[in-house]
Amino acid sequence: MNKSLRICMIGAGRVGKLHSGTLSRFIPEADVIAIVDPATKILNETADHFEIPERYVSLEDALEASDFDAVVITTPTFTHKKLAVLAANAGKHIFLEKPMALNLEECDEISQAADQNQILIQLGFMRRFDPEFTAAKSRIEAGEIGEPMMVKSLTNGPGLPPAWANDLKTSNGMLAEVNSHDWDCTRWLMNSDPYRVYVETANFKGEDRGVATEHFYDNVMVNIKFVSGSLGCISGICPCDYGYDARVEVTGTKGVMQIGEMKGQAIIVCTNRDQGLITPIYRTWPQRFAWAYLHEMDHFINCIIEDKQPKVSADDGRWAVAGVLAGTRSFLEERPVLMHEILEENHG
Amino acid sequence: MNKSLRICMIGAGRVGKLHSGTLSRFIPEADVIAIVDPATKILNETADHFEIPERYVSLEDALEASDFDAVVITTPTFTHKKLAVLAANAGKHIFLEKPMALNLEECDEISQAADQNQILIQLGFMRRFDPEFTAAKSRIEAGEIGEPMMVKSLTNGPGLPPAWANDLKTSNGMLAEVNSHDWDCTRWLMNSDPYRVYVETANFKGEDRGVATEHFYDNVMVNIKFVSGSLGCISGICPCDYGYDARVEVTGTKGVMQIGEMKGQAIIVCTNRDQGLITPIYRTWPQRFAWAYLHEMDHFINCIIEDKQPKVSADDGRWAVAGVLAGTRSFLEERPVLMHEILEENHG
Amino acid sequence: MNKSLRICMIGAGRVGKLHSGTLSRFIPEADVIAIVDPATKILNETADHFEIPERYVSLEDALEASDFDAVVITTPTFTHKKLAVLAANAGKHIFLEKPMALNLEECDEISQAADQNQILIQLGFMRRFDPEFTAAKSRIEAGEIGEPMMVKSLTNGPGLPPAWANDLKTSNGMLAEVNSHDWDCTRWLMNSDPYRVYVETANFKGEDRGVATEHFYDNVMVNIKFVSGSLGCISGICPCDYGYDARVEVTGTKGVMQIGEMKGQAIIVCTNRDQGLITPIYRTWPQRFAWAYLHEMDHFINCIIEDKQPKVSADDGRWAVAGVLAGTRSFLEERPVLMHEILEENHG
Amino acid sequence: MNKSLRICMIGAGRVGKLHSGTLSRFIPEADVIAIVDPATKILNETADHFEIPERYVSLEDALEASDFDAVVITTPTFTHKKLAVLAANAGKHIFLEKPMALNLEECDEISQAADQNQILIQLGFMRRFDPEFTAAKSRIEAGEIGEPMMVKSLTNGPGLPPAWANDLKTSNGMLAEVNSHDWDCTRWLMNSDPYRVYVETANFKGEDRGVATEHFYDNVMVNIKFVSGSLGCISGICPCDYGYDARVEVTGTKGVMQIGEMKGQAIIVCTNRDQGLITPIYRTWPQRFAWAYLHEMDHFINCIIEDKQPKVSADDGRWAVAGVLAGTRSFLEERPVLMHEILEENHG
Repeated sequence: MNKSLRICMIGAGRVGKLHSGTLSRFIPEADVIAIVDPATKILNETADHFEIPERYVSLEDALEASDFDAVVITTPTFTHKKLAVLAANAGKHIFLEKPMALNLEECDEISQAADQNQILIQLGFMRRFDPEFTAAKSRIEAGEIGEPMMVKSLTNGPGLPPAWANDLKTSNGMLAEVNSHDWDCTRWLMNSDPYRVYVETANFKGEDRGVATEHFYDNVMVNIKFVSGSLGCISGICPCDYGYDARVEVTGTKGVMQIGEMKGQAIIVCTNRDQGLITPIYRTWPQRFAWAYLHEMDHFINCIIEDKQPKVSADDGRWAVAGVLAGTRSFLEERPVLMHEILEENHG
Repeated sequence: MNKSLRICMIGAGRVGKLHSGTLSRFIPEADVIAIVDPATKILNETADHFEIPERYVSLEDALEASDFDAVVITTPTFTHKKLAVLAANAGKHIFLEKPMALNLEECDEISQAADQNQILIQLGFMRRFDPEFTAAKSRIEAGEIGEPMMVKSLTNGPGLPPAWANDLKTSNGMLAEVNSHDWDCTRWLMNSDPYRVYVETANFKGEDRGVATEHFYDNVMVNIKFVSGSLGCISGICPCDYGYDARVEVTGTKGVMQIGEMKGQAIIVCTNRDQGLITPIYRTWPQRFAWAYLHEMDHFINCIIEDKQPKVSADDGRWAVAGVLAGTRSFLEERPVLMHEILEENHG
Repeated sequence: MNKSLRICMIGAGRVGKLHSGTLSRFIPEADVIAIVDPATKILNETADHFEIPERYVSLEDALEASDFDAVVITTPTFTHKKLAVLAANAGKHIFLEKPMALNLEECDEISQAADQNQILIQLGFMRRFDPEFTAAKSRIEAGEIGEPMMVKSLTNGPGLPPAWANDLKTSNGMLAEVNSHDWDCTRWLMNSDPYRVYVETANFKGEDRGVATEHFYDNVMVNIKFVSGSLGCISGICPCDYGYDARVEVTGTKGVMQIGEMKGQAIIVCTNRDQGLITPIYRTWPQRFAWAYLHEMDHFINCIIEDKQPKVSADDGRWAVAGVLAGTRSFLEERPVLMHEILEENHG
Repeated sequence: MNKSLRICMIGAGRVGKLHSGTLSRFIPEADVIAIVDPATKILNETADHFEIPERYVSLEDALEASDFDAVVITTPTFTHKKLAVLAANAGKHIFLEKPMALNLEECDEISQAADQNQILIQLGFMRRFDPEFTAAKSRIEAGEIGEPMMVKSLTNGPGLPPAWANDLKTSNGMLAEVNSHDWDCTRWLMNSDPYRVYVETANFKGEDRGVATEHFYDNVMVNIKFVSGSLGCISGICPCDYGYDARVEVTGTKGVMQIGEMKGQAIIVCTNRDQGLITPIYRTWPQRFAWAYLHEMDHFINCIIEDKQPKVSADDGRWAVAGVLAGTRSFLEERPVLMHEILEENHG
């Protein structure tokens, strides 16, 4: 316990705050000693709130002035590659938020830097640490529902993502920013890679919310054929306004399994029989995945301490990016896209 | 099927309408040919609605002028004994709503008249015909939860009962009018008679609703020790305003069983994450026990046709009345009351 | 009530029995006076069970020998066109099970015969009469969840369909036999016609169950773009073995609505904490849609009596067939199919 | 954060382990530096597991040899008074598990020692820190369900308690060891003290489990009248074998509120339609109240650091003991017992 790991947060926004809080509050083995963000107002706000002593406006500054063991990268997607490669080359272990990067070339650059410098890299797919998802995965692997035949995974988020996340130039849109988790967890739960992808999108709220970005969509429906022959559906709605909603249903040759629910708390109230029973819904992802965020960070720190490979690898991050790219091409070209098209052109 | 049974409804109020509708609509073997009610307005209204040809203001008139096989008695409790004895002595089979009568002497008079005239009598404990309650009873009898140790049964009704139902002179109050079903179904599910009863009551809404009746209560909590040694709790709230709520929980040596739920329909809606998920509640007892009302009437008609004893007997009705009397004495005298006190003084 | 409608059942199998039971048991205005089935064993079995006096091995015989007002057609899909046209030309009103027919030409022949003979035709989409689905439709139309953006509808059936239903020559397979209801209810709930369809299929159990039919599939995943711009997902698994499962989820601009659930009865039991809580699942479609089957037949009979157009029309049946044809072409040709391709070639 | 509080655990058993884990793992401000238990095997086992450096067989030894700020007392009830008074007189803050003590005199001795030495004392009613219970309390206080009229609270525990906990000489039995939480949370949620108590007990499993203790019971049903006029029911079953079950239902003048559920995880599986849907149940109290145990210990440590009175006081502990004493007298003397009888004789 006395050998504390020193952590530098890269990104002081919402997710940066979430992980700073988890590390400070729940992980005795880790000390958050520095934080980096070019936006000094939020930098100081987050640093003050979590009593983080060192503050920097760039990772370069932090690397020069400070000493730490690992970084936690929570900045926008288009910055991931540069930051992760920089950190890897400086020998820092990396916790990297999803989506891993904008394309497979960037993913590969990150992985190569990590390999060359022998540092650990863990992707931010926290669902793999959620008690419900992990129990479900174990039970599926134990054969409880037989061979998986079909999976449906949805993620609906309450609010409009930031502008950069809706622009295909700085992100890959909702399929990446919101549904990366679904790309990862369907592949993980089905124990098979996607083979072919077809996507439809819709834009119902963009105009009212002032989003004029080309190809913007707030509804997406993905049809997946897996290599195993099984079928999948990923859907996303963002902003959905009504709450944070993440549910998965897997049907196997022997039966069906539902993972997660909308209900956010076991309180039921009725005060009006014309209205009915009312139960809280999960309002936000930090609320829904409270344990998962704790466990994933705990896992990252423990992997460093015990020099073990994290359960969620750069390769998992790369697969999610590949799915996103295939899906995006599908709706742009209005046709099913084979994963091979995406995977092979990136290995040229 | 061509030998239709001729039925005379006695009582044209809410329950009279319910059973008239069931018989007309769903029981091809029965013809509702007459209806009796001293209140001519509601008599004609109900008769018109269900196209009942003969209308009478008294059972005596009906017996004299018409010809029928059975009666369905849904009038206020204080009229049950006189009407049931009259019908029995005229050789009519009797479907008698709960509570059976005001006291055990009246119950015994009804039973004796039924026996002497060899007519069938079925009490209106429709829960015994509800698909959930009957499945639960079968599973308990099959030993699924072991030996029953504890039962909790609640009935909360939305609206204020009529004045006669709140007056201990014309009824036995909520314990009888609302909770008769709980007295019956706890004894049935536990397969044991009550041994000792203790009751607390409260009056929260009486004043606001203009009820000045002595001993009026709108909340009741009953503690029961059964002959088998098992324990029970009956509670009632009326008016509860929020819906119609009837749920039972039985715990046995091997496990627990919940019967019924508040949810009235499998529709869940969320349009506001500050409010949460909304599901319809059962609004009324006809909605909650739709199948049960159909099945109980079907059973009554079939018992007549096939000359079989109904599953819910006058003796079951008498036990519910005995429980009500013990409970009422308990809260009036602020002490536990042995069922023997009630049962023996009535056999004097 | 005395003017009973005379009904002739065409088809004495599972669905024929279901509707015979409903008509005999719950619809006083209808008399099932005849039944037709070429398989005399099941013909007599069903006729005996429901006390149907007249029995015929062909509709032609029935039309010649008997007199009735309406037919209820529950035979295999490939027989629908011939039987429906025959009945229509004889002036009989028609309740026709789904799917309406094998293709749009057949649908049009049926509709034309109905129009020419001025008879009523109602399609067997009983979900439109289910209390949950009808409440949901009303609430969506009232704007409760805003403009519908996305729908997911699944139907999983427990057992392997009969051989004819798996053969694209005599049926259109699972998409038609199982998922016709989803084609209809997504279009109905979304209040928009499908615009483009993409389908993936899988075959996991065929070999073990001895199905060697070409193109057989037991898993299907449909991606729909509606004319309104909204998105849809239909999925089906048959045989799924675990129960009968039919659930829909609609998300609109204002919120989400779930319709239906797997739970078949409000009984929860726990006798083993390593196993957990156990609740009955719907085992079969007659159990899940008990009220719906009653209400749809009631509606059909009432429409005849009151000379009103049924709420579920031949046009609704035709749209479901069109969706099935587009979906089938999609998975055979591995591409998205525009509904126009299907609709226009059939109007040549 | 650098000013770590030094904690001495008193008791190395199940609850001692739970709190040691919480403090070590989740409360950075607290250091568990010592542990006391006369049973050296479990003392060393627990100390080793949580890396607690100092080990003592008595509190006296610990006080003499070590230096710490607070104690966490998790030993059997009959030791509470002596240990708490000793700790208080040494100026140590006290976290004291429920039940507070064997009788009101002991409670008063503890409170007086705490007052005289100006140390903080917090009782182990963790439900007051559970996210569901705290949300429910806030919503009730905000008037959401109106004035509370009725409360039902149950606690069923899976396994047989240790021998001392079943003996009225060393404990007050199940009413104290299991249902202390219900005594506390009903009074808290109803915002009223109990006025009169009536209790029935049953013994179904004692003989099979080898419990020959006089007055042993494994089922209890408590009927409460509160000073406010509202009604309450507390029930307990231990061992219930089927899981850990703690649920509360409060009905007010405006509506009903359910707090907690049996479901332990949002995973639903069905692999057999004859069996049905299966969902995990809470297996143990640490699982059900995981967040509550964390939050209550966090609160205790923060109260010390910020010199604030804990939200759960010695007076709350005393009220729960008073309820237990009234309940025990009720079933021994087979009569309702006024709380005044208990409260006044202890102030003589």
